[in-house]
Amino acid sequence: MLCSKMERLIVKKKALLLEPGKMCKGNYFVLNGCVRQYIITNKLTEQITQFGLESWWIADQESLVNQKPSNYYIQALEDCELLLLSEANRVILFGQVPKMESYFRIMMQKAFVAVQRRVGFMLNMNDEERYRYFVSLYPGFVQRVPQYMLASFLGFTPQFMSRIRAKKV
Amino acid sequence: MLCSKMERLIVKKKALLLEPGKMCKGNYFVLNGCVRQYIITNKLTEQITQFGLESWWIADQESLVNQKPSNYYIQALEDCELLLLSEANRVILFGQVPKMESYFRIMMQKAFVAVQRRVGFMLNMNDEERYRYFVSLYPGFVQRVPQYMLASFLGFTPQFMSRIRAKKV
Repeated sequence: MLCSKMERLIVKKKALLLEPGKMCKGNYFVLNGCVRQYIITNKLTEQITQFGLESWWIADQESLVNQKPSNYYIQALEDCELLLLSEANRVILFGQVPKMESYFRIMMQKAFVAVQRRVGFMLNMNDEERYRYFVSLYPGFVQRVPQYMLASFLGFTPQFMSRIRAKKV
Repeated sequence: MLCSKMERLIVKKKALLLEPGKMCKGNYFVLNGCVRQYIITNKLTEQITQFGLESWWIADQESLVNQKPSNYYIQALEDCELLLLSEANRVILFGQVPKMESYFRIMMQKAFVAVQRRVGFMLNMNDEERYRYFVSLYPGFVQRVPQYMLASFLGFTPQFMSRIRAKKV
């Protein structure tokens, strides 16, 4: 039943799943590959807000919950295989399988906890502590993603990232 | 049915609803008053992670979702009237009224969006921009909460807060 409600997508590296001004189509589940969500700031730089790896969900929840056009990009960083649960199908699915609504409630609760912890790290760790902590949590991820993107996500400059990596952290 | 599942609490200013090492009892709904959620950092300072005003929910979602003791304090900043939906009663309620599960899913989705936007502001606005933006969103709130707490929430020093207020922002 779940499979019948989800659309399988094969996208090439650099393909955009979402652009500013467009509605987010639904929740994407990453089967293979890696995606990023980012915004272009007032200073015209890319600010990465989220990554999505295998078995992670990614979406612009603000566009979905408020049914308004997005401010974000979602882009494939590698060739990707994804499942899209559209908003229309999500509503049908929740009606048919109430457990799926519980699943999404808990998924959102965990996503909230993760981003709230991120706020704590931003306020209470310096750049080096934040980098070390992230590497300890996601060692494989650090090898997989371009360094300037990791710097953008963690909120420091590519120059700082080069320095800290030169120390063989 | 909802009322029968929620416990009405009257607490005095400065009372603690949650302390580190204790399990969060459930979700608190603020009827009257104002509460704050905070953590004691490695540097032994108070870091405020969230405020709760009238009609806002507040809880340590990490303690609730992982069923583990909290790292946070939740404290009344004024004499407060609250409703507590315990975890046991929440489970019963969701079984009886599936719409309540939708309500909590959407509540968590909105909370996620709010904290994700906060990350964006922290990365892309300087202290003064962040203060002005917060004041424009919640003008009444800024009058109601001690200035050093607002500084803690926004991530800058009380000294900076004094300087910016001296400019009659």
